[in-house]
Amino acid sequence: MTDADPFDAVDVIISKRDKAELSDAQIDWVVDAYTRGVVAHEQMAALAMAILLNGMTRRETSRWTAAMIASGDRMDFSGLSRPTADKHSTGGVGDKITLPLAPLVAACGVAVPQLSGRGLGHTGGTLDKLESIPGWRADLSYDEMLGQLESVGAVICAAGASLAPADKLLYALRDVTGTVESIPLIASSVMSKKIAEGTGALVLDVKVGSGAFMKDLASAQELARTMVELGTDAGVSTVALVTDMGTPLGQAVGNAVEVQESVEVLAGGGPADVVELTLALAREMLAAVGRPDVDPADRLADGSAMDVWRAMISAQGGDVDAPLPEAREQHVVVAPGSGTLTRLDALSVGVAAWRLGAGRARKEDPVQAGAGVVLHAKPGDQVRAGQPLMTLLSDDSTRFARAEEALEGAYDFSPQADASTQPLVLDRIT
Amino acid sequence: MTDADPFDAVDVIISKRDKAELSDAQIDWVVDAYTRGVVAHEQMAALAMAILLNGMTRRETSRWTAAMIASGDRMDFSGLSRPTADKHSTGGVGDKITLPLAPLVAACGVAVPQLSGRGLGHTGGTLDKLESIPGWRADLSYDEMLGQLESVGAVICAAGASLAPADKLLYALRDVTGTVESIPLIASSVMSKKIAEGTGALVLDVKVGSGAFMKDLASAQELARTMVELGTDAGVSTVALVTDMGTPLGQAVGNAVEVQESVEVLAGGGPADVVELTLALAREMLAAVGRPDVDPADRLADGSAMDVWRAMISAQGGDVDAPLPEAREQHVVVAPGSGTLTRLDALSVGVAAWRLGAGRARKEDPVQAGAGVVLHAKPGDQVRAGQPLMTLLSDDSTRFARAEEALEGAYDFSPQADASTQPLVLDRIT
Repeated sequence: MTDADPFDAVDVIISKRDKAELSDAQIDWVVDAYTRGVVAHEQMAALAMAILLNGMTRRETSRWTAAMIASGDRMDFSGLSRPTADKHSTGGVGDKITLPLAPLVAACGVAVPQLSGRGLGHTGGTLDKLESIPGWRADLSYDEMLGQLESVGAVICAAGASLAPADKLLYALRDVTGTVESIPLIASSVMSKKIAEGTGALVLDVKVGSGAFMKDLASAQELARTMVELGTDAGVSTVALVTDMGTPLGQAVGNAVEVQESVEVLAGGGPADVVELTLALAREMLAAVGRPDVDPADRLADGSAMDVWRAMISAQGGDVDAPLPEAREQHVVVAPGSGTLTRLDALSVGVAAWRLGAGRARKEDPVQAGAGVVLHAKPGDQVRAGQPLMTLLSDDSTRFARAEEALEGAYDFSPQADASTQPLVLDRIT
Repeated sequence: MTDADPFDAVDVIISKRDKAELSDAQIDWVVDAYTRGVVAHEQMAALAMAILLNGMTRRETSRWTAAMIASGDRMDFSGLSRPTADKHSTGGVGDKITLPLAPLVAACGVAVPQLSGRGLGHTGGTLDKLESIPGWRADLSYDEMLGQLESVGAVICAAGASLAPADKLLYALRDVTGTVESIPLIASSVMSKKIAEGTGALVLDVKVGSGAFMKDLASAQELARTMVELGTDAGVSTVALVTDMGTPLGQAVGNAVEVQESVEVLAGGGPADVVELTLALAREMLAAVGRPDVDPADRLADGSAMDVWRAMISAQGGDVDAPLPEAREQHVVVAPGSGTLTRLDALSVGVAAWRLGAGRARKEDPVQAGAGVVLHAKPGDQVRAGQPLMTLLSDDSTRFARAEEALEGAYDFSPQADASTQPLVLDRIT
């Protein structure tokens, strides 16, 4: 504490520890002082644990979010000729939705700035997927980003270090101190970045199920509600869909294989669940910017979404006509019995893809562009014993054994002819 | 985490965060790994907050204590010709009891090794008090300590850095992370040091009231019970007295003035409350080593306790016949009205003495040997308006104003002839 500091970190920690509501001034100070290094990591760790265990009110969480935004720069897209809409997913297995969604919504006349991240653990990263396209680059300057939004309408790129630096520090700290699973901290982390990005409308895809961060519907709904409140409090038109992540999305889990599947969707094909969720999110984004009359399905059918995709990838150096990288080795997993596939566990498939090389265990690890899992059956499908269930892809055949371990117990069969499947969109929170 | 580490700090933190009981192996590992620097300060801070909010069972607290002991050296007094008994106070205002107690119990044939600390904040430190004696030194080698215990029977000296180093790290961390007020952590901190000191019997003086760390009786009783359990689990005969710290002990609060008062007690005089508590603790120490037949009051009366005091101080270089330092300035506070003094707040007097220079705000600050407060009236005494209530002592007269501020509202008078006072010893826990 210097003479200029109006608070002492220990007093702020003790307030939250003893279940008091933190004042606006306390929150502003502790977030700023942590960013400046005046509040030490061990102090913020103790505060984060107290927040995780004792919670924060809506007012506290809003203020915390505002303080994290104030720690860095804010983008401003108000000068664009089109309204802007943004989408954020809490992360899942096979979740390539951003790839077809951004060009599709741009084809409907909306500017879509998607600042994305790389994957860590069993959920893939949008930038990792796009980097499998030869020549494509994730790092754009602010001016390049603005120019591309005006000319192409969509941009998917890396978030710069200047947005919400307090969140970057706190995110890394929470990861090593067992303080990740706090809804106010998760919500403020996501929303501080999204609000700092300056979008006018935001659609959240909050995943629930084994492959998601939130394992049960009630937690996912609470997270969705908290994030919608934060967006609303900050003047951003925000809506959340709570969607199922018990089963992987689509048939491809990995990097290049997910790009391939996304291109199929943009070409008017692709798996039904990926198409359904892409259209549902597109309709929410259009409604949020006052264009409920536009039907995004038309833009898939008429090829205009594909045109934006090609322009978007090319603008960032990507060769849209080059063949995508393929894994050097593959291994087919066959069905052990016959019947209806009733369950295909998203977490197991995500971990298998990760172990095959599609994901990374540490931030500095490389990923394999061609690695992943391609599913040949989804829940509800009939399979016969010995029929291919999935294909494992990797540049390194020694990885198949560990991937197969992850898949043990990952699927169930039933002799009944059909199995009930739950809807993909479970709730909508405004 | 290295390959040799069987646990991950995040998993241990999450276990306690989610209210699970930590295993012996988890506790052993996390305490050892923290001492080795493998578990980071921010990780231990998060764990300490989770422990503070979710608690630890008796088994967990015992194991945590054992792990802190195992992080350093253990002393061994079993080779001495006499049994050993130790006393620990949780700290209070005017608490000079260790000074007359150690030589008194030694005069009864028991070896008394008192490893003590310096003061921080409003409670004084035993070593600070003794250092007001010209020439006296606190730092002894292990061999010097053993030799003095054999020849004199009593030693009061600084605890070496090799005892429970995990506790030293954790104590400093808790201080800056709002995680001090956890009964399992307080109890294990005290008891790890006391058990590592190798005493055969331990008597705890757990203070309760405004001048103490524990402000209410229930908390003090819980802390006392937890510490007695830890001692018992470690095979140390342990008993606790819960004693009042609403009012300062004795009439002197400071350094040299408390030495002076202690010498008066050893000479057969001194304030009644100091004599009462010294004898009560001495009787507990004697009973704990199987000498309930010895009456310590006899050793005050026959001068043998004073003989041990003189030998103990001389053995550590102190000049027992040299005059004690006196403050250069004094300021008398007079009674604002007449009546019976019904309340004299320990915390206020402690803070006043601290501000006068008797204590320190930071570990590296010096203390004034002569500074402090001498009380001329205690609760139950009759006073007349204008009569001296207390004398403030400092080398620096500019400190009187801030000390008087601390004393605002510190005392009450009643026109009634007498006031009820509560007993000094409030509970005894075995």
